[in-house]
Amino acid sequence: MPLHKESETLTLDLALWLLPGSNQRRVAQLVQQAASPTLSSRLLLEQMTHHPAFKEGTRQLARLALNDPWKLPYSDRLLAHLRWAEQDHHWLLALHELPPLLQNIVDPPLLLCAKGQITSLDAPALAVVGSRSLTPEGRHNALNWSHRLTRQGLNIISGLARGVDGFAHQGALNARQEGASGTTHAVLAHGLDRVYPLEHRELATAISESGALLSEYPLGTAPLARHFPARNRIVTGLSLGVLVIEAAKRSGSLVSARHAMEQGREVMAIPGSVRRVQSEGCNELIRQGAALVTDADDVLVELAQPLKQCLQSNSSVNAAKPPPALSDHLRPLYCLISDVPQSSDQLLSSLGLTAAEGSAQLLELELDGYIEQQPGGWCLSS
Amino acid sequence: MPLHKESETLTLDLALWLLPGSNQRRVAQLVQQAASPTLSSRLLLEQMTHHPAFKEGTRQLARLALNDPWKLPYSDRLLAHLRWAEQDHHWLLALHELPPLLQNIVDPPLLLCAKGQITSLDAPALAVVGSRSLTPEGRHNALNWSHRLTRQGLNIISGLARGVDGFAHQGALNARQEGASGTTHAVLAHGLDRVYPLEHRELATAISESGALLSEYPLGTAPLARHFPARNRIVTGLSLGVLVIEAAKRSGSLVSARHAMEQGREVMAIPGSVRRVQSEGCNELIRQGAALVTDADDVLVELAQPLKQCLQSNSSVNAAKPPPALSDHLRPLYCLISDVPQSSDQLLSSLGLTAAEGSAQLLELELDGYIEQQPGGWCLSS
Repeated sequence: MPLHKESETLTLDLALWLLPGSNQRRVAQLVQQAASPTLSSRLLLEQMTHHPAFKEGTRQLARLALNDPWKLPYSDRLLAHLRWAEQDHHWLLALHELPPLLQNIVDPPLLLCAKGQITSLDAPALAVVGSRSLTPEGRHNALNWSHRLTRQGLNIISGLARGVDGFAHQGALNARQEGASGTTHAVLAHGLDRVYPLEHRELATAISESGALLSEYPLGTAPLARHFPARNRIVTGLSLGVLVIEAAKRSGSLVSARHAMEQGREVMAIPGSVRRVQSEGCNELIRQGAALVTDADDVLVELAQPLKQCLQSNSSVNAAKPPPALSDHLRPLYCLISDVPQSSDQLLSSLGLTAAEGSAQLLELELDGYIEQQPGGWCLSS
Repeated sequence: MPLHKESETLTLDLALWLLPGSNQRRVAQLVQQAASPTLSSRLLLEQMTHHPAFKEGTRQLARLALNDPWKLPYSDRLLAHLRWAEQDHHWLLALHELPPLLQNIVDPPLLLCAKGQITSLDAPALAVVGSRSLTPEGRHNALNWSHRLTRQGLNIISGLARGVDGFAHQGALNARQEGASGTTHAVLAHGLDRVYPLEHRELATAISESGALLSEYPLGTAPLARHFPARNRIVTGLSLGVLVIEAAKRSGSLVSARHAMEQGREVMAIPGSVRRVQSEGCNELIRQGAALVTDADDVLVELAQPLKQCLQSNSSVNAAKPPPALSDHLRPLYCLISDVPQSSDQLLSSLGLTAAEGSAQLLELELDGYIEQQPGGWCLSS
């Protein structure tokens, strides 16, 4: 099956991601050990062919993927995802294409399916999480605080669940309709060929018009209970901080808060009555050191420091945010280029590009004014 | 006018306390400078006769008080207080007779009028404070948490005001009626010849049956607005910690919390809805570092450390807690005696007692088994 080189890279990304028995956690360890910004699926698959953490069957599949992925026993699934991604506003984002914040968590997703508008994924975002069964006050806070913070330019990240999630997305969409620059993204715990819960189908469609639906699960994956805690690490991984609106003592929201702490994100909680179970989680978080916030402006105060860092890193070395107008096939290369000059060889080998392909892409980027040649090599245009 | 020697000491206490222009704050500075556990009103008056902080008129009154207090222009007020204190369960507690916790604050009262039962004043106590206009939830918490903590043996100290104060006292009294060992004391911002607010007259009577009504204001003093913040320092000064039930952002309860912080007491607050003004003060306190407590047992956990210290100091050197059965006239001397032997001269000069009076009192204490003679002098019985 003839494919462009970019598609070949993507095919390897898919081959790795869909590889049965590859065990997300073990691959994540490889990613950690590599700890390279230029990590490719090819490199990971090569390591898997001989790494003791993987069984012989898995190693054989990795070898096959490197030799001819279309001979893999699950090649039909590769094809299904490529076909899916050919549709308008459907994307398959490999590890190196993820927002830097998410790339740098301990266990980043190897690949994210995305549906909708992905250009704002690098913009500063806040995770808003909380209980499915919430009080009228919780509903008010989810809706209004998200509205206010979206107007301030933040993106709201949540999980499309009933309760807090839904109202947080809705509040952001309301602000967006009023012209706010922020929007909202939903991270799902199942394949993007379905919507769960069904009652949020319209909400999901509305989200995908200005933001995106995201999932690390292949098409056809059902919303299994064990997916939700794992999904939560992506919600916080995409965000500068997490705001817990209302939460019971043992709840997914506290899992999100723990992820956020481990990821070095700000954790904020709204205090509540000691006589309501919906406040127990938030009060407990505050006791454990989460910031107590009483209005949306408090959230901005708490986020001031990470916001500053985020804006600085988005505009300096290793700026990994491609300009919206940039063609998709140039994005991986563009993301590798920083203010520090790098040689062509360095850049091309990172992406597994041939000299001819690489030179062509570098030329395109140069002609479009994105990059320039300096004595030490290629860097971003000044 | 013939008086017992003890009455002479008390008369000097009253002469100092009632001295116009003595300015509580300036006298407090003298107390601070002296920083002696044996500080007497005589010593303070002697310092006032020449201290530059006082005007000549005040100095003259101090001299007169030392020479013949019954010639003071306010001698009728001295007499009125002595007469008042002759009634059953009425007390005038001079500085050195106050509970050690209160004695050791920066600005202790020079004298406290007390009405009721004072033997439990040294026992571990918790200040419970909060809003006058409280929510049903605040009422529930004030009543029930105080009830529970009194059953655990704590005394509840509050200010007899409408709202939280009243319910806190009532909760403690309910527990007391059920046989709890703890009780409740009310610190008032006016003379003890009246009760404010009037609607709490029955409550005040009930309190004085197992606890006490306390005031640093002379009889006849009206409940002026400026007395309340000053009163609050005594509420917290008597306590190991303060629990704020509900409070608006600018309120007397926050004044109490500040006093408590300055006095090194534990500050605890109950979190509440961000959409109620009655929660604003508590949430703000938690943000500033107050312990977030969600049930009465949390309070005990927060108090564990000071409780331990309190129980240790009540049973070791300088134990200032006289046994309940001890006659009143022996209490000042008893309080000076510790595990470290002191000579008779040392002890008697501290209290301004003659050799004859002092020896008689020491003998009484020895015969009752409270103290004994060691090579270095008098100390508590081992």
